[in-house]
Amino acid sequence: MIKIALVSFGKIARDQHLPALRNNPDYQLLAIASRNASLDGVAHYKTLEELLEAMPELDAVSLCAPPSVRYEQARLALSRGKHVFLEKPPGATLSEVEALTKQAKTAGVTLFASWHSRYAQGVAPAKAWLAERTIKAVQINWKEDVRVWHPGQAWIWEPGGMGVFDPAINALSIVTHILPKPFFLKEAALQVPSNCQMPIRAQLAFDSDGVPIQADLDFLQTGPQTWDIHVDTDAGRLTLSKGGSQLYINGQLEQEGPDEEYPGLYVRFAELIRSGQSDVDVAPLQHVADAFMYGRRELVEPFEDQ
Amino acid sequence: MIKIALVSFGKIARDQHLPALRNNPDYQLLAIASRNASLDGVAHYKTLEELLEAMPELDAVSLCAPPSVRYEQARLALSRGKHVFLEKPPGATLSEVEALTKQAKTAGVTLFASWHSRYAQGVAPAKAWLAERTIKAVQINWKEDVRVWHPGQAWIWEPGGMGVFDPAINALSIVTHILPKPFFLKEAALQVPSNCQMPIRAQLAFDSDGVPIQADLDFLQTGPQTWDIHVDTDAGRLTLSKGGSQLYINGQLEQEGPDEEYPGLYVRFAELIRSGQSDVDVAPLQHVADAFMYGRRELVEPFEDQ
Repeated sequence: MIKIALVSFGKIARDQHLPALRNNPDYQLLAIASRNASLDGVAHYKTLEELLEAMPELDAVSLCAPPSVRYEQARLALSRGKHVFLEKPPGATLSEVEALTKQAKTAGVTLFASWHSRYAQGVAPAKAWLAERTIKAVQINWKEDVRVWHPGQAWIWEPGGMGVFDPAINALSIVTHILPKPFFLKEAALQVPSNCQMPIRAQLAFDSDGVPIQADLDFLQTGPQTWDIHVDTDAGRLTLSKGGSQLYINGQLEQEGPDEEYPGLYVRFAELIRSGQSDVDVAPLQHVADAFMYGRRELVEPFEDQ
Repeated sequence: MIKIALVSFGKIARDQHLPALRNNPDYQLLAIASRNASLDGVAHYKTLEELLEAMPELDAVSLCAPPSVRYEQARLALSRGKHVFLEKPPGATLSEVEALTKQAKTAGVTLFASWHSRYAQGVAPAKAWLAERTIKAVQINWKEDVRVWHPGQAWIWEPGGMGVFDPAINALSIVTHILPKPFFLKEAALQVPSNCQMPIRAQLAFDSDGVPIQADLDFLQTGPQTWDIHVDTDAGRLTLSKGGSQLYINGQLEQEGPDEEYPGLYVRFAELIRSGQSDVDVAPLQHVADAFMYGRRELVEPFEDQ
């Protein structure tokens, strides 16, 4: 039984982490650390420091706060010998993730950089199917309405918040996982609202050993939402739709299932702890950093949340 | 004897690569590939493709073009089994450098991501001295006049050109080399001219296990030029000045020498080829990517080259 605490208790912690933990008999939820939020029947502390002080028996923490504050929490938890589950993205910078990885290794504890979309129902069968095909082209369409999914979350427009890359890094986490070969950015255009630091739309062109990968990212899509990845191969078109939960091959629905992303992540985290390993894949974050470094910026009209 | 060619023959190739190669008996300069420039007494080809076709006996190439065009050249040269010397920075993106590293390994040839400032005279003794001290703070001041050092080089303001990080990555290459512990970005401000893509000034704050590292970068410094790194320790202040060529300890000049950076690089490249190894340290480029991803941008007045 892994004695775990949730650090920060916002939307993602309530909607995803809490039910996944409650339904997994490997975990016992000991406490929540959050300035304001608490939960009936679970011990509550204002800060991670107080929690660690009060509950030395704790084995692990799940860090659900925005990336720019997560590093200090991870560093503290690792220094006390706790296993650490990092929400995505694993950091605001690549170098801090590298530092945490070294710290976890030295401390002999598990660090898990989670990428929840890799546990969507269609992803594993898509990876298996693609492994035996010749890939010709990839198109990523990731278009959602920021006002619906991140209402009032000003941090997403600040440095570290990543703007449209906050959802799009999920697509990159899938594509880096299912494609048999690595790829890298050839060209990127980032549209940044004049009152924000981070892009609201982006178009990316990657190359994977001659195979073109295009991504069209939009944070202003109203109406139907689009989280699709199309892969054209010598055996036709594979499509992962609805964020990876549906798999189509040549228009035929091959796989569809309930949302098991966070349950899958917590199964994986328990396995890593049991086997004394870490899992920190920075490839999706590296692609985002490359887009910020190599992308061409255009200022567009200001963004107002309401 | 390593049969080598220079690809692109601009300012850096003429001023630095050519004399370093000519004075090193390990190398024979076979050819130059350049659209327009040539050199008396050395074979000339318009493109790398033509050069590789015409001179199968070639062992190695030095790629001196701007980073955004260098990847395709490196890929081609590696695919023909040539050893590759990359000018700094090693790529326009981190992912492309990773792809080249894998390709070189598969091909069994040497890839060298060169960081010339690491071969400045003061750097090795600074590293040795710091290894035995407790570091308290680091201040990087890297301030030069872009109009003097990059006259008419429009590429430096385009994506991949890096703006003020083009010189500042030299400072980062030194600091990542001489400090005993890794560090990562906590905060960054980037000032970008309204008619450019890349920053002209930047202020960075890093953390190295509690030790603050500050960097003040300026591409508009007229008059005396500043390429200084100050390290405060329990045994006083170490200063690397003039880009690393002068070492001061507590105000006392300890080391000064002629510019041996490129000669040092070519000695290293020959060693790597002889021992069948590669040397691709992306740490300086990773810090730049982090600064672009996590930095706060401010638009400033337009930049005019003249």
